[in-house]
Amino acid sequence: MGRITVRRPVLRITSEGTRQRPDTLAAEEPLEIRVDSHPLSVTMRTPGNDVELAHGFLLTESVITTDADVRAARYCDSPGPDGRNTYNVLDVHLAPGVTPPDASVERNFYTTSSCGVCGKAALDAVRLRTQHPPADDPLTITPERLTELPDRLRDAQRVFDSTGGLHAAGLFDAGGELLALREDVGRHNAVDKVLGRALLDGRVPLSECVLMVSGRASFELVQKAAMAGVPMLTAVSAPSSLAVELAEEQGMTLVGFLRGSTMNVYTGAERVRLAEAETPARH
Amino acid sequence: MGRITVRRPVLRITSEGTRQRPDTLAAEEPLEIRVDSHPLSVTMRTPGNDVELAHGFLLTESVITTDADVRAARYCDSPGPDGRNTYNVLDVHLAPGVTPPDASVERNFYTTSSCGVCGKAALDAVRLRTQHPPADDPLTITPERLTELPDRLRDAQRVFDSTGGLHAAGLFDAGGELLALREDVGRHNAVDKVLGRALLDGRVPLSECVLMVSGRASFELVQKAAMAGVPMLTAVSAPSSLAVELAEEQGMTLVGFLRGSTMNVYTGAERVRLAEAETPARH
Repeated sequence: MGRITVRRPVLRITSEGTRQRPDTLAAEEPLEIRVDSHPLSVTMRTPGNDVELAHGFLLTESVITTDADVRAARYCDSPGPDGRNTYNVLDVHLAPGVTPPDASVERNFYTTSSCGVCGKAALDAVRLRTQHPPADDPLTITPERLTELPDRLRDAQRVFDSTGGLHAAGLFDAGGELLALREDVGRHNAVDKVLGRALLDGRVPLSECVLMVSGRASFELVQKAAMAGVPMLTAVSAPSSLAVELAEEQGMTLVGFLRGSTMNVYTGAERVRLAEAETPARH
Repeated sequence: MGRITVRRPVLRITSEGTRQRPDTLAAEEPLEIRVDSHPLSVTMRTPGNDVELAHGFLLTESVITTDADVRAARYCDSPGPDGRNTYNVLDVHLAPGVTPPDASVERNFYTTSSCGVCGKAALDAVRLRTQHPPADDPLTITPERLTELPDRLRDAQRVFDSTGGLHAAGLFDAGGELLALREDVGRHNAVDKVLGRALLDGRVPLSECVLMVSGRASFELVQKAAMAGVPMLTAVSAPSSLAVELAEEQGMTLVGFLRGSTMNVYTGAERVRLAEAETPARH
């Protein structure tokens, strides 16, 4: 439990020759999340911060909206081959009055919409479920500050990540201060952990925060940000088409390809505070 | 249907200033896979090659083992907001005698093992389910040939990928020839599509092939390779701890950080044909 890296021998081959040496790998283990003792989901995750992960998952699947909706979260006894607890099963007890989730979150997601299986239905489902519809949040941030975020994420990440195998998610305030960073073999888990941390700290809805992810921005990550009331999602790499559509539908700001001094603002450009001289020209 | 990219306007910000321009995004849409009219799974994927995707998914979830196990695969009528078919629901009819899957593939996966939820249980489950246990397959390949694969993958990928947002999976023969390449917003989908193509071509088990992925190697990707009888998985980036454990357990070769003229061989080094002089020294 809690080991985020594992050492393994590796045969390193270069043009100079080959040699055996140890290598550090990102740990990956299954986590089963139960709600009131009923199995809900299994995710392959990097062990550690599992209580945050469960809170973030339940928040972004709209099972809970505040940390008061959880009475307790504790590991079940789940012995491995050596008889010791694997700490891979976490049971979340909901507070009285909180409606337990449907057994199949995935199915539930798509049947909330009356139309067929399509991008529009997926957008509708998020709109119906979010407790934090777009508000007149006060967040604005300059491009200069945004361009600092990737380095700040990497600097904090460097502490943990010697493996090259972890996705990172960071939560920043409008001043560019890093509030929380989490890493995981699964990028959705990294986001769930950082949002779960924020929920436990009473910060949700995160209406004054920027969420930054180390890779691409998919529909799922925009959905998670929307469910936590995050007005701005930034990504080092590309967004998908449906990620952009959902961000637009939710009134969120979505920034991609945030690298060096450049970025692409896909939606919600009003939150990026340009200097007077930089009002965009249409070419 | 079938559009793998979408054009959207974007506000491009650089140190020289800002301007509006169009940007090309990787398309993302939900696909519901049904088996004999029963919904089984929803995945967010790049539209196109959906029949391959369904075949690859059912192969790697051990529902089918040959293309003869599928009687027909066809799109259901699933109208979108404009009344036109979204082509986002695919129904697979199994041949007589093929056992339909349990409603919950994920659940099924973990309950095949008698022990708790842990890495060992996940490994056991794959071993119990694979139809293609490690054999004395004839595949060997030189490091020089392996180092050519990333460029070959990228060259083929360049045709499709103007978005920076797609994962790629390529299937190569032992001579380094590319047999099939598929791209998707989800890396598991790219792998399912390429394995589904191979199944439809009657090539499974792929005992003489190398599967290459553009990103990291997770447990899930090694599992999919194992279910298709692929003896070697190579990745541009890092593997996870459980990916390495599963490859070892399955007698597979796992190569990571395959970049330039270098690579890390994590398991199954006997399939990497080193020159006589390059027998590894232990440092």
